[in-house]
Order: sequence, then C-alpha cells, then structure tokens
Amino acid sequence: MQKVGIIGAGSFGTAVSNLIADNADVLVYSRNEKTIESINKAHFHKEAKLQSNIIATNDIERITKECNLIFPIVPSKNFRSMMRDISPYLRPYHILIHGTKGFSADNQENITANDIYRISQVIEQESSVVRIGCLSGPNISKEILEGQPTATVIASQFREVITEGKKVLKSKRFQVYSSSDIRGAEIAGALKNIIAISSGILSGLKLGHNLWGLLITRGLTEMIHFGKALGSDIKPFLGVAGIGDLVTTASSQNSRNFTVGYHLAKGKSIKEISEIMDEVAEGVHTVLFAKKIADKYGLKVPITRMVYKIVHEDYSLTDALDYLINLDYEHDVDYL
Amino acid sequence: MQKVGIIGAGSFGTAVSNLIADNADVLVYSRNEKTIESINKAHFHKEAKLQSNIIATNDIERITKECNLIFPIVPSKNFRSMMRDISPYLRPYHILIHGTKGFSADNQENITANDIYRISQVIEQESSVVRIGCLSGPNISKEILEGQPTATVIASQFREVITEGKKVLKSKRFQVYSSSDIRGAEIAGALKNIIAISSGILSGLKLGHNLWGLLITRGLTEMIHFGKALGSDIKPFLGVAGIGDLVTTASSQNSRNFTVGYHLAKGKSIKEISEIMDEVAEGVHTVLFAKKIADKYGLKVPITRMVYKIVHEDYSLTDALDYLINLDYEHDVDYL
Repeated sequence: MQKVGIIGAGSFGTAVSNLIADNADVLVYSRNEKTIESINKAHFHKEAKLQSNIIATNDIERITKECNLIFPIVPSKNFRSMMRDISPYLRPYHILIHGTKGFSADNQENITANDIYRISQVIEQESSVVRIGCLSGPNISKEILEGQPTATVIASQFREVITEGKKVLKSKRFQVYSSSDIRGAEIAGALKNIIAISSGILSGLKLGHNLWGLLITRGLTEMIHFGKALGSDIKPFLGVAGIGDLVTTASSQNSRNFTVGYHLAKGKSIKEISEIMDEVAEGVHTVLFAKKIADKYGLKVPITRMVYKIVHEDYSLTDALDYLINLDYEHDVDYL
Repeated sequence: MQKVGIIGAGSFGTAVSNLIADNADVLVYSRNEKTIESINKAHFHKEAKLQSNIIATNDIERITKECNLIFPIVPSKNFRSMMRDISPYLRPYHILIHGTKGFSADNQENITANDIYRISQVIEQESSVVRIGCLSGPNISKEILEGQPTATVIASQFREVITEGKKVLKSKRFQVYSSSDIRGAEIAGALKNIIAISSGILSGLKLGHNLWGLLITRGLTEMIHFGKALGSDIKPFLGVAGIGDLVTTASSQNSRNFTVGYHLAKGKSIKEISEIMDEVAEGVHTVLFAKKIADKYGLKVPITRMVYKIVHEDYSLTDALDYLINLDYEHDVDYL
C-alpha cells in the first residue's frame, strides 16, 4: 500500500491524515512526543479516533524516505523553518501539496509588501521540489474528523499533482475538485480568515444575518481586489476554495478566526485571546500582511483596514462598525 | 411631508413601511380588517412597534391618489390579481418599486416556461406604469423590524426610480445600493429561495458548515446558469442582491424558505408545512417554475432539480443528498 506523509499534527493535519488513511497508509511528522505517543498508542488525537494505519514520527528524514507524496500542514509562521528542516532530504521526485492558509514572511521587524510570500513560493525558495500544489476549500477540521461530508480543491499547475492528490484524498464523504490556479486558491484561502474574524465580531455584538450577508459580499469583493493586484484570476474566488471556504469559515464557531473575532467583541485583547487558544488563528498574521499589500497597491479594502486597526492597533469596534455601515458604495460589484 | 404607498402588510411590507416612516408618511394597503385596525389603533403589527405616521387602508384607489411612489410587496401568487385591482387607478406618472421575490404565472394547470414572468414584467403587462424598480438584498424582515442595520439594492433602468426610492429608504441603519440590472436582481432574488430550502434541509439533517459552504457555492453557480439563460448579466449575482441575499436567507432561521427545508428534513410533508406557516414560502412555487425553465434551456442545475423532486414529487431526501454529494464536477467555476 502507498504511504503518504503529513507534516504537522494540528487539527487540519490530523483531519487530512484520517481522510487519506481510507486510501493509503499515513506517516505523520510531529515534534511533540505526547502527540506521537497519543497517535501511535491510543490512536486518538484532537478529540477524534484515528485510523490504525496512521503512524506518527519525530524523524522528518524518514517521511521523505518512505513517502513521495507529502502534505505539509503547519502554521504559516513556522512554514519556512519547517521547510529548512526538511529540505536537505527532499528531491525533485517529491510532490508537496500544502494545506496552510496564510502568507509567509521572514521573521523581520519591519515587514514590507515585498517580504510577503505565498506558501507555495516558500516551498520553491527553500527546496528542489517542483511539483507543488495546495488544498483549499470549506474544510473545518472538527467536521471532517466527525465524518461529515465535504469537498476540497487541489490547485496546482501540474496535472499529476492533482491526480496523485485526488487518488489518496477522494472518498464518498470527500469530493475533490481541481484547479490550475494555485495562486488564486492560496490568496483566497489566506484572506478569507480576515473576513472570518469580522464575522466573529458581528456575532459577538449580536448583529444579525442581514449585516452578515453584507459582510460576506463586501468581504469577497475585497478578497478579489487583493487577488487582482497580486496577479490572480477572479475565478478561484468564486468557487469552492473562494466563496465556499469563506462562508463556511465565517459561519462556523469551530473556526479559530471566527472565535478570535467573537472574543474581541466581548472585550478581550488579542494578547488575552492568544493565551486561551491552543492554536494561533492565521487571520491575525494575515491581516498584518494584507494591510502592507493594500498600502503598496493602494487598494480600496475598508473591511480589511478596519480589522487591521482593531487587531493590531486596538481600535474601537463600534467606531469601526459605524464607519463601515455608513460608507457609501455607489457600485455594488466593481471587479468585473 | 411626502406620502409613500405600500401594497401589502406582510412581514416585508411592514418592515419597509417602518423604514420609510423615518423619511416620509406611509399609507399601507391591506384587505385584512384586523391588520388595518392593529396598524391604525395599536401601531403594532408583525410583532413590532410601528411608527405613528404609518396609516393602513383597505381603499386601493386612495393609495394611487395620495402617493406617486408605491411599493407593491405581496406574494408572487397574488401579484397579478393585485395589479388588476390597482391598475385602473394607476397613471404613467406613478413609480412602482416592488419587493416581491418570486416569479409569476397565470394560474393555469399546465404551466410551461413561456408562461413564467418576472414581477416587473407583470407590472408592465397589467398597467400603464413605465418607471418600475425592484428591491433586493439581505433583508430578513424580523431583523429590520428590530432595528438591525443592513442594506438593499434598488434595481431599475430609470435613474429617477433609484433616486426617489433611495430618498425615502436610506437611513443610518439602511444603506441603499443602486443597479441598472433589474432583470438580474429579480432572478437572483427569486432563485435564492430554492437554495434556502436546501439549506434548511441540511440544517434539519444536522449536516455541518463544510457542506453548507459547498451548497452555497454550487447553488450560486446554478443561479448564474439560470440568469445567463434568461438573458441576465452575471454581475447582479455577485453583489448584495445576489450572494448577499443568498447567504443571509440560507443561514437565517427567520427565513420562511429555510424553515420549509428544515421541516422537510424532519419528515413533514409540504401540505403539513403549509398549514403551520402563516405566509407561504416563495421557494415552493419558484422551484416549480425553475424546473420548467431548466428543462426548456437544458440547464445543468442538479440542486434545483433535486429540490423540485423533494418538494413536488415527494422524493427521498437521503437519496437526493447521496446523489448530490457524489456528483462529479470536474470544473469548479464554469460560467465565466
């Protein structure tokens, strides 16, 4: 039986491991001894029963030796250092399909728009791997681990990346769509977390579904403005990895980014929120990067700018909301 | 002070009356004596306190004499007969902005696609009025009546219709966008109710947010296929009257169409559901019309076809769901 590698045993890495275990053996890399023991002995992790053909290891070289197909799924902040750890063992025959929804920057103090990269660019920069793809879609980990049905998109310029990924992921409860636009899928997947934070804020303030519908519409428009500025087509934003992922993440209390917004609305600071959550919400970093990109290209993205001010400059929620509600948009859809 | 007419004192008619009462006096037409008394004496209707400058009457001629700007907001099934009642009193100087989200057909036994009209077409057919518009957006009545903020779109080919409508509707809690594409706004507003029924079904079956995100994405795609077949641009589907209205209606338990789906999932028949609900859900009629249109143009709209079979042919929910989940879509976004 084929063996597939997963780098990272967070919620989504674990959910993907359990999906792939239907079709192939799985070898998961984790640096956490407790996690490894829990997976290998109890077959239980992230509050879910795991299939017995999922084995965990702390030996990253072993993953590259036993698996040609590897899914790196680690937080964006750690992605580059993880790549530096694994890259001595990677060869051009490896296929990497990542599941990280964020941007990456070198850990500098004063990041500019030019220091910000998509995750697939980091893979290209740090390794000899050519065949790269990404996973993106409405994929709340908790629901996947419960066995609920859904779908994802594998985006890659390489047909064989999509074929190989589909072969191991597809099942009766998990549809796999394909797209050749990895750039758009990565940008949409990262930016939707900003709208998910806003959505949590509306929910925490007990605002209704009408305003939420407006947020989704305007939020999607802002995502597309970013996409166009960064050279992406608008198609990926209108599909499963765009609207699909957006409305799911922005409506689910199981989404970490939604939860951040909810706590913000209840008066907690970002520092307090980071302390109570076990995994950092990607949107907190993403909105910082998005602000830099918006400034560089002069984008009209008022929701993104307000979320930035709320999260990173302690700006008043009610002032932000007042500003956004009374903003006069003459045109409804301005990107086509 | 200007006086604005509203035809119909259902939930949405009442919500619009209360919004307009901020900017103008309101005269509401109803055939129900109890409703008229409740509005005129108690200033209370649809579980909401109404402003005191809202007066109700059962004299439809009076509306046309005292108001140049009239908002007909009655169920699609009654729209044509209402137009036949009012049309002897309408003159070309009247402006009509309707708020009905459905299609209209003459009450025949065997409806074909050629008997189906948009609401603005019915106004054109039945009266001498030229300046016609429609309201469309994320506008759950209950939330508007609670004073929650939101926005709508006024769509019309006539600039003055938009200007006049905006003047009486716009407030700090109600943004008004404009669009010249009334055809698209009407089609999107009608079809989204089919997806809202599906959404209620998923909720009743306790399926998660991942699958819901997929439903919204594929549902929007189907709406756009209909729109293109009926000669509309895709823009209205991607704005406030499209995605905005769709995600709101499909996520709110205060939406009648969502409620129909929810009860279907709990095993109730359409007949039983109609008996417990005080206003008929538009989507039940819309899906019948949509099926005729899909057949005429040979559209690939599997969700719509399944909702039709469930609602009108008593088809098994689990079979429908199995079919849809395992449907192989190669392309994610196929309308651009």
